[in-house]
Amino acid sequence: MNTRTLPVALVQERDHGDTDANLAVIEQRVAEAAAAGARLVLLQELHNGAYFCQHEAVSEFDRAEPIPGPSSERLSALAARHRVVLVGSLFERRAPGLYHNTAVVFDSDGRFAGRYRKMHIPDDPGFYEKFYFTPGDLGFTPIDTTIGRLGVLVCWDQWYPEAARLMALAGAELLLYPTAIGWDPSEAADENARQRAAWLTSHAGHAVANGLPVLSCNRIGLEPSPLGSAGIDFWGSSHVLGPQGEVLAMAGTDHPELLLAEIDLGRSESVRRIWPFLRDRRIDAYHDLLKRYRD
Amino acid sequence: MNTRTLPVALVQERDHGDTDANLAVIEQRVAEAAAAGARLVLLQELHNGAYFCQHEAVSEFDRAEPIPGPSSERLSALAARHRVVLVGSLFERRAPGLYHNTAVVFDSDGRFAGRYRKMHIPDDPGFYEKFYFTPGDLGFTPIDTTIGRLGVLVCWDQWYPEAARLMALAGAELLLYPTAIGWDPSEAADENARQRAAWLTSHAGHAVANGLPVLSCNRIGLEPSPLGSAGIDFWGSSHVLGPQGEVLAMAGTDHPELLLAEIDLGRSESVRRIWPFLRDRRIDAYHDLLKRYRD
Repeated sequence: MNTRTLPVALVQERDHGDTDANLAVIEQRVAEAAAAGARLVLLQELHNGAYFCQHEAVSEFDRAEPIPGPSSERLSALAARHRVVLVGSLFERRAPGLYHNTAVVFDSDGRFAGRYRKMHIPDDPGFYEKFYFTPGDLGFTPIDTTIGRLGVLVCWDQWYPEAARLMALAGAELLLYPTAIGWDPSEAADENARQRAAWLTSHAGHAVANGLPVLSCNRIGLEPSPLGSAGIDFWGSSHVLGPQGEVLAMAGTDHPELLLAEIDLGRSESVRRIWPFLRDRRIDAYHDLLKRYRD
Repeated sequence: MNTRTLPVALVQERDHGDTDANLAVIEQRVAEAAAAGARLVLLQELHNGAYFCQHEAVSEFDRAEPIPGPSSERLSALAARHRVVLVGSLFERRAPGLYHNTAVVFDSDGRFAGRYRKMHIPDDPGFYEKFYFTPGDLGFTPIDTTIGRLGVLVCWDQWYPEAARLMALAGAELLLYPTAIGWDPSEAADENARQRAAWLTSHAGHAVANGLPVLSCNRIGLEPSPLGSAGIDFWGSSHVLGPQGEVLAMAGTDHPELLLAEIDLGRSESVRRIWPFLRDRRIDAYHDLLKRYRD
């Protein structure tokens, strides 16, 4: 059984204004993470700038970059410099008029280990992602690195047990989610509390159902709306969960934070031995999961 | 939108020794539930007797009954007498040598509304269910009643997001789980705390992923092992959750309890409007959910 302990770090940050400023802060945080012993660093969703999906504007496509491109090269160099596996989140320009919300993974020698294009794309007031992001076409495929097989997903994917399960079935050893989720400041406090709790529950549910650790790195801070509404108050709460959904580390809701944790990779198999859920799946009776609705 | 409020009751009980004694207590509790206004009553898994799956003994098959049969007739009469929809859990004798762990639903006029045969069957030390129960062959099909379409599942099913999703896709308005889960008294306290928390997380995760209320009725009390080991200390904690996984009511861990709650059935659609997860499922990319493993 796997008895490795994996030190990890999550960089929960606010927006610092532009790509260069944000990457400069990330470079500083990754240096701190590596100095603290981290071997895997997870960044938040679309860490290069503001969460621009609060409105629909064609000029925002200027933020997109090819992969490889300037930002991916900088992340690659950062991973190599500090000998960490680095998981970033970029606005990918694949072709003129074809863009994705793409997670990128660099191994600890700086090698590009792989990309994941966000499969489930949200669209609701303040999160107009369907305008910007073509749904991913790479499927739910984990990415192999020297520290393990990573099940990298992105934000809205977090609500889909199907995504987590497919990563687990493909041998993912960790589930990782760069996210950008927050409160509507004009919403009632009890509703906002329920939303954050539901988000934590959803991540923990994937850990339990699959017997895997879950890492989620979320943005922090209030970002104003270009449309003049209340904006989004990103709730942070970045977290590392063990394979029973237990909280190993959790960041706060109101400030940037470098969240450190140690994951015992051997616990996943221990947990799966006492709760062997994968053994008993009724794959003969799941066919209707491929339907939109059973009507 | 559905604006109904549904008062529900869960009967969390210890084993009272034999079928007649257990059903007599259930009859009293259902009377109390109806007097308190409940229109739906959920019983715990295998409520007619001890949790006999702590060992493998052919004599235990004597507990099984056909459906319809004496216990189902008694539950039917009970539902009619108090005008409640009643969800029970019986050891079904389908044929000599063919038995199921079966949930039964009676409408408020006593009519047999339908059955669900437990699809996922566990087997681990103290829970030797694969010896007793043939895996269900009725699929994940909700049961229609006058108070709504019920997604009835049983215990081990609770760990499978697939089961909850299939019920939701078939139009279930509530997810209901009779359960029998507890602590090994010889296990470490921290592990036992994680197990109970993971169980609650799993139920809440289904609520969130599907935007549906979840009702889980669990056994309570220490039942000794026929094999001389420490037995099972059923942890109760029966609960009613709203469609964001929020706790509407929860029973304690150490005593029988009639748990009452009111469910706002209109909230499910409100929650699904702000978080339209069903809209964005990638059914084009879920095919491998039908595989045992993606290797």
